[in-house]
Amino acid sequence: MDLDDLHVVIPAGGAGTRLWPLSRASHPKFLLDLTGSGRTLLQQTWDRLAALVPGERVHVVTGPAHAAAVADQLPQLRHLHVEPSPRDSMPAIGLATAVVAEQHPDAVVASFAADHVIADERAFGASVRQAVGAARTGKVVTIGITPRSASTAFGYVQAGEGLGVPEAPDARSVLRFVEKPDEVTAREYVEDGSFSWNAGMFVTRADVLLDHLALLQPSLHDGLRRIAAAPADEREQVLRETWPTLTRIAIDHAVAEPVSLQGGIAVVPGTFDWDDVGDFAALAGLREPDDDSVWIDADGFAVSTEGTAITVVGLRDVVVVHTADAVLVTSIEDAQDVKKAPAAWVERGRPDLL
Amino acid sequence: MDLDDLHVVIPAGGAGTRLWPLSRASHPKFLLDLTGSGRTLLQQTWDRLAALVPGERVHVVTGPAHAAAVADQLPQLRHLHVEPSPRDSMPAIGLATAVVAEQHPDAVVASFAADHVIADERAFGASVRQAVGAARTGKVVTIGITPRSASTAFGYVQAGEGLGVPEAPDARSVLRFVEKPDEVTAREYVEDGSFSWNAGMFVTRADVLLDHLALLQPSLHDGLRRIAAAPADEREQVLRETWPTLTRIAIDHAVAEPVSLQGGIAVVPGTFDWDDVGDFAALAGLREPDDDSVWIDADGFAVSTEGTAITVVGLRDVVVVHTADAVLVTSIEDAQDVKKAPAAWVERGRPDLL
Repeated sequence: MDLDDLHVVIPAGGAGTRLWPLSRASHPKFLLDLTGSGRTLLQQTWDRLAALVPGERVHVVTGPAHAAAVADQLPQLRHLHVEPSPRDSMPAIGLATAVVAEQHPDAVVASFAADHVIADERAFGASVRQAVGAARTGKVVTIGITPRSASTAFGYVQAGEGLGVPEAPDARSVLRFVEKPDEVTAREYVEDGSFSWNAGMFVTRADVLLDHLALLQPSLHDGLRRIAAAPADEREQVLRETWPTLTRIAIDHAVAEPVSLQGGIAVVPGTFDWDDVGDFAALAGLREPDDDSVWIDADGFAVSTEGTAITVVGLRDVVVVHTADAVLVTSIEDAQDVKKAPAAWVERGRPDLL
Repeated sequence: MDLDDLHVVIPAGGAGTRLWPLSRASHPKFLLDLTGSGRTLLQQTWDRLAALVPGERVHVVTGPAHAAAVADQLPQLRHLHVEPSPRDSMPAIGLATAVVAEQHPDAVVASFAADHVIADERAFGASVRQAVGAARTGKVVTIGITPRSASTAFGYVQAGEGLGVPEAPDARSVLRFVEKPDEVTAREYVEDGSFSWNAGMFVTRADVLLDHLALLQPSLHDGLRRIAAAPADEREQVLRETWPTLTRIAIDHAVAEPVSLQGGIAVVPGTFDWDDVGDFAALAGLREPDDDSVWIDADGFAVSTEGTAITVVGLRDVVVVHTADAVLVTSIEDAQDVKKAPAAWVERGRPDLL
């Protein structure tokens, strides 16, 4: 099955405050080599997608503070869209989709976050192929990750009947999207077998997505179309004028959830290892053990960007992070609360620690 | 009561490995301003004693690695004895005592560690005066700290009958010295009322101490006498030859314990706040709260010698120490085990972290 109609969008945003002080306002998560692989999360995302489509069909959408760093990390990138201000995922993905649709009316657009980790690229490619196959039939398709645990850190997607699409034999309709559940509910979902993790991956024909938007978020749709249709020498000007008027909304709320109620969403299974590296508990599971630290009756996760010797005595499941200007100590269990730290420092009059 | 016969010895040794990585082989505990007072522990010890005796009657005994730093920190010091190798407290205190006895046969010698913290200098001075009064009668006198808690971190001294010395109305004979007890025993000691903490402070006539040594450790006694009696221009040479032959032994084992069995030891009460700053649990109680760190659902003790921002999320009674080349994380409860850390780093091929 060829993927000649496939175009890719990588929204590169999000502060990653739960990975502070590694992830910073000036160097957020997607710009960092968090897994110690030698490539940043953004570069790993590029590598994964460049194996499926030529680089000239990849679009990255990011903020003005990170445009230079993105261009620097991805020298082969041809389409870099700079959003003047953060307006969540729907305007970002919608902008690239509208731009693609101007030149390729039959395009299929697939959107993947810039800061997720996927281990098995072959399995990922197979899922994308099925998703493209299902998308060609007019569905908005998500890749639902087969749960490895009853995680409460992710939203879930419930699958219904099979679609019977030859190019996407495992595609099923989506009954509903559900928010991050509590532990009991998460266990019920995983036992039920019809639920998968919502990894925020969406594959859809450009015209299908834009038609949904025209109905559900008409002013957002019109703004995006206006920007995309502007002549090259006026695009920047129209973008600057229009962008601040666009509704700030996530693609899940704008399209995925409402369209699922009409039976317009499909899901194909992703059996590969996937993680959104949401916090240090997740990162601890993804990195090689840190041989540079000493643990005495202790265990957990430690990293120093400076190569500084870290010693932990008598604590279990502890997280220690050291950077040039900050030391963070927490536990695997409290990893989600790290997001409170940068705000606390700003309150202390230290915006440099943001 | 005058103190004209009083000479002071400050043995300045000990690695302070339980305060690693603040306390280092090259900069041990006594050379550090651990309490944030602006004076190092050695300087605080000097200040406390210089209030009682003129500086020319203060002797410091230290190792060759720290002699320059000691001289630098105490510009008024006249008697600096450099022991060629560490041989524990009896040779160090005995050397200074033998030197004093050469010129002042009737001297009273008082020995105080260089790395202890004492809050109330007036009460300390009053205890020293009573100890000198009792020492003049021929007893070896210790100042026993009135326990503030049933600590298991210190040895204890059990007092017997009062001595009836007018210059030392609170002096009592010592029944026995006991090693660091377990918790149940420590509580019994404190409830009993006759036990005090052994702070390693000894006050004795020089001739009395040397006479005990002559009986109990004759070769050590003879070696110390030989060094002290050497003419000034030969002292260094005799010291270098004799020192390696001296028995390595603490004053507690060499004199205090055996002489207590003969009724030769007395104790006067020390009602002042005293601490040997043995570990980070002790230090946490001695320092002002660190306003430079952020605690989110967390508490404990944090210090960065570099002024680096420390953040703790979700942990209780945690200890975080950051220096130019190391990060240590432990808990108040595990503070004693920090002494294992420097050795672990040496084993890792990092002797620079000692």
